[in-house]
Amino acid sequence: MHAFSKEISDCIDACFACQKACMGLAMTHCLEMGGEHTAPQHFRMMIDCAAICATTADFMLHKSQFHREVCRLCAIVCSECAEDCARLGGMEECVTACRACAQACTQAAH
Amino acid sequence: MHAFSKEISDCIDACFACQKACMGLAMTHCLEMGGEHTAPQHFRMMIDCAAICATTADFMLHKSQFHREVCRLCAIVCSECAEDCARLGGMEECVTACRACAQACTQAAH
Amino acid sequence: MHAFSKEISDCIDACFACQKACMGLAMTHCLEMGGEHTAPQHFRMMIDCAAICATTADFMLHKSQFHREVCRLCAIVCSECAEDCARLGGMEECVTACRACAQACTQAAH
Amino acid sequence: MHAFSKEISDCIDACFACQKACMGLAMTHCLEMGGEHTAPQHFRMMIDCAAICATTADFMLHKSQFHREVCRLCAIVCSECAEDCARLGGMEECVTACRACAQACTQAAH
Repeated sequence: MHAFSKEISDCIDACFACQKACMGLAMTHCLEMGGEHTAPQHFRMMIDCAAICATTADFMLHKSQFHREVCRLCAIVCSECAEDCARLGGMEECVTACRACAQACTQAAH
Repeated sequence: MHAFSKEISDCIDACFACQKACMGLAMTHCLEMGGEHTAPQHFRMMIDCAAICATTADFMLHKSQFHREVCRLCAIVCSECAEDCARLGGMEECVTACRACAQACTQAAH
Repeated sequence: MHAFSKEISDCIDACFACQKACMGLAMTHCLEMGGEHTAPQHFRMMIDCAAICATTADFMLHKSQFHREVCRLCAIVCSECAEDCARLGGMEECVTACRACAQACTQAAH
Repeated sequence: MHAFSKEISDCIDACFACQKACMGLAMTHCLEMGGEHTAPQHFRMMIDCAAICATTADFMLHKSQFHREVCRLCAIVCSECAEDCARLGGMEECVTACRACAQACTQAAH
């Protein structure tokens, strides 16, 4: 899309990919495994991460004057979600998507 | 993502691409052009289309028992948005994304 | 808000109240209780219901030409969520909010 | 809802009321008036404000560990939206809802 710089366009895509990984795995893998995967703190983190990624993509699509602040917050949530998923194991897809999104958001926030 | 069939995974991606085109162009091209581009009926259609695409991706990511109904509604909104954008001209990117999403949603609804 | 009829304004409020009950209880009561409360089918229904209520409020706020179709779908999801919560027990707040929202959406869809 | 303190529950309601005012007026009053009301900076601010209010309500409903950070950001966006609407005139409903939400979010962020 010509309306956005390559950096912002890539960050929007990274947010969508992370939302897909976090919401998709929370509602399939995590619910089906149960145990630690539906522990409130972990499950909420997955849903938080999907939600802030959706919002961050939306703010960039708005060409919002607040997109840097939202990107910074998204980078924090994604980094913590990546750590939590790495700790649990079996969620490499989520870890990778969260780390990529945190990095893209950190760049877009500059 | 192994949690979803290729058809559903592709439809999720088509929804995100259509949300990106509709919300992105509405909030940049349409607001900057004004005139017919911010006519209430047209502008609302663009925002409706972005919103139903976001919701449809979300329902597929939930593995929702209602995803077919949401996909069917998304296909209707995308098809009408594509026609409206084709009529206005200068919005080929949106027309293409809406048509691709309508087709993917029609398949995912079967 | 003068921009909307009383029926539509009330339906928007019923959607927000139902989203609050479903998302709020899913992420607290259901995650903390576990067992049947985090069974994939039940938990997904709660999250589906919160999501379609949010979308339905949004479409009414857009003065969308598609608001009737979205209201009809919302009434279906809310009715099924009410039944599922009534079956489980201990979720009266959710049952009440879902039923009120289903009724408001049915009226707004006419 | 017993799951939340009165302060958090009130803040969720203030977010929904502000989302209703901002999205509802943007898509009716602003689109119908045009001119300064669809100037990109103003219109984007209205949509940003509706979006961050929706996200902030959602994070409180998740009992998210990040809700304070999201509330702080929401208070900033609401305050600036209130000023922008006050400057334009004829949008008292929005000004009031934005100020009330900024105050509720500031309290919920402590």
